[in-house]
Amino acid sequence: MTQTPTDRRFQSSDLEVFVARALTAVGLPTADAEQVARLMILADLRGSDGHGIFRLPQYVRRIRAGGMNLRPNIHVVQETEAMALVDGDNGMGHLVMRFAAQVAMDKAGRAGVGWVGLRRSNHAGPAALYAMMPLERDMIGIYIAVGSANHMPPWGGIELLLSTNPIAFAIPAFQEPPIVLDIATSVAAYGKVKTKAQRGELMPEGWMIDAFGKPLTDPQRAEEGFLLPIGGYKGYGLALVFGLLAGTLNGAAFGRDVIDFNKDDKTPTNTGQVIVALDISRLSPVEAFKRNIDEVIREMRNSKRMSGVERIRLPGEQSHSTWLERSAKGIPMNETLFKDLQRLASDLSIEGFAT
Amino acid sequence: MTQTPTDRRFQSSDLEVFVARALTAVGLPTADAEQVARLMILADLRGSDGHGIFRLPQYVRRIRAGGMNLRPNIHVVQETEAMALVDGDNGMGHLVMRFAAQVAMDKAGRAGVGWVGLRRSNHAGPAALYAMMPLERDMIGIYIAVGSANHMPPWGGIELLLSTNPIAFAIPAFQEPPIVLDIATSVAAYGKVKTKAQRGELMPEGWMIDAFGKPLTDPQRAEEGFLLPIGGYKGYGLALVFGLLAGTLNGAAFGRDVIDFNKDDKTPTNTGQVIVALDISRLSPVEAFKRNIDEVIREMRNSKRMSGVERIRLPGEQSHSTWLERSAKGIPMNETLFKDLQRLASDLSIEGFAT
Repeated sequence: MTQTPTDRRFQSSDLEVFVARALTAVGLPTADAEQVARLMILADLRGSDGHGIFRLPQYVRRIRAGGMNLRPNIHVVQETEAMALVDGDNGMGHLVMRFAAQVAMDKAGRAGVGWVGLRRSNHAGPAALYAMMPLERDMIGIYIAVGSANHMPPWGGIELLLSTNPIAFAIPAFQEPPIVLDIATSVAAYGKVKTKAQRGELMPEGWMIDAFGKPLTDPQRAEEGFLLPIGGYKGYGLALVFGLLAGTLNGAAFGRDVIDFNKDDKTPTNTGQVIVALDISRLSPVEAFKRNIDEVIREMRNSKRMSGVERIRLPGEQSHSTWLERSAKGIPMNETLFKDLQRLASDLSIEGFAT
Repeated sequence: MTQTPTDRRFQSSDLEVFVARALTAVGLPTADAEQVARLMILADLRGSDGHGIFRLPQYVRRIRAGGMNLRPNIHVVQETEAMALVDGDNGMGHLVMRFAAQVAMDKAGRAGVGWVGLRRSNHAGPAALYAMMPLERDMIGIYIAVGSANHMPPWGGIELLLSTNPIAFAIPAFQEPPIVLDIATSVAAYGKVKTKAQRGELMPEGWMIDAFGKPLTDPQRAEEGFLLPIGGYKGYGLALVFGLLAGTLNGAAFGRDVIDFNKDDKTPTNTGQVIVALDISRLSPVEAFKRNIDEVIREMRNSKRMSGVERIRLPGEQSHSTWLERSAKGIPMNETLFKDLQRLASDLSIEGFAT
């Protein structure tokens, strides 16, 4: 959601406390609630507004409906030197993914690379959060997930069998912010369609088509159409392959088995994800590598621009700026969300957050 | 290249013998020449006409110019349980990649996953060839490469700093052909632009833009413009990240360092690639997994189609059909290529191939 002049701003620490309080109120152990709150607000700090505190009412609803396990036994089912399969036991996705990322980094620390597949996980917020975890250990992170609702048909089809399965990569630099690419395999995310609908605006051609293959630009008619994959059949192929790697290979849901977690609060989603950590030091001296990344970043940024283009950006640059800005000035929140959260607070009989 | 009614057809075995003969004539050891010939003709069998025997004159030219090492010491520079860095010593890409794929599979056999980075390699033909190698050991294959010429600027830029860096995935099925996705990060491959130029046809909008950001549809003006990445900035991000993983991380060329191997026959390209092998059995019983892939394939194929669409295809399906058809009926070749190869034969004083 784009910020408007009327948006209020809140300190991230206040929002973290609020989220933790809400999750504790519905039964999550305090330490877990704090962990989830930290990751959710980190999403807001980085500008992933659709994946942060915005999701709190939905998570609370799902927990109350019995759709998530509040005392999960998150554990490694099978493992090798460099690989593991983690069962999330239907716990909150943030907790399951954090556990899995640790396993991946430990494996990479010993074997050079750690590939960890997950089953029985849940929606965990923006892909970048997890791809970035290995950065703190001078590792490269890769994250792939089966999305939490199907919005795409196979190329040429009209049945919604594919999610916009995202992938994220995080690569550390030396003085520059890390390169963090976090993309869905569709041209536009479904959240952007919803925002257009809220605002009464039309969508540009290329976001969606209808069942006859015609461009669909009225977001009110979104249910009649489908998101378009990036590069046509290429994006379809990527969504499919990411779904097989993150879902099928791990015994997690894919295709028709995917639960639309926006419409169904109760059925366990059996969400599948993959996190890969790569220990840079096994291929290259770490500092030299990071300095090379700095050089690449500057080579791209300082190259000749198309007329009218103000700046050539690197993936993750904008999120990094947003993170700096929001860490200093607070996280903006629109009136609708603010009211939703106030209602939630009164509903859960918990304190709200400072305005 | 699309087949025309006038195309001649040749048995793959005859073409293999011819390619091996040509490579031996310019100094490649017989066993290596046969290996490269087998992989090049496999590209033709699978319909990758721009990456098979079509490349032979260029490879010969490069070898004669001293641009490739005919007696390379292809070796592992560094390794861990699950990871290796391979130095190709400027040998032919097919030989270097085949060596690296073996290393990746051996690592995966022991550690579950094998991640092998390459430096000082060369153009190796279609990405799918290498992603598919692990299939024979019931492994999933992933291949990433830095392309052999830059055809894309960073998003918003006009300097050609990025190649269309491809990625390929191969996932085995039980009764169905494997899922094989092999895509460049641009909407169209540069080869397709050249084909349009040869035929005097216009390109559709969306393939290229000019330095002012306007659609470029005249392929004769291709040098003034750039290939468009899939999904706009998303494809730019993928091309960048793939370049960093396959190039920079391995100490191989990336960005301004990339040699345009179509224009420069002499300078070593220091091509970078990555091959990953994943041992399925460490995450799932292999047969059950393959049967699940069959089910996914059928679910997609048999789902409702958009009107006018004859068949929903899975990635790799068309290449598989082409492989079956060409294995039985031979490989079609247009007159231009046929004449080029005849000229090459006389030039090298070797026998041609049966017509």
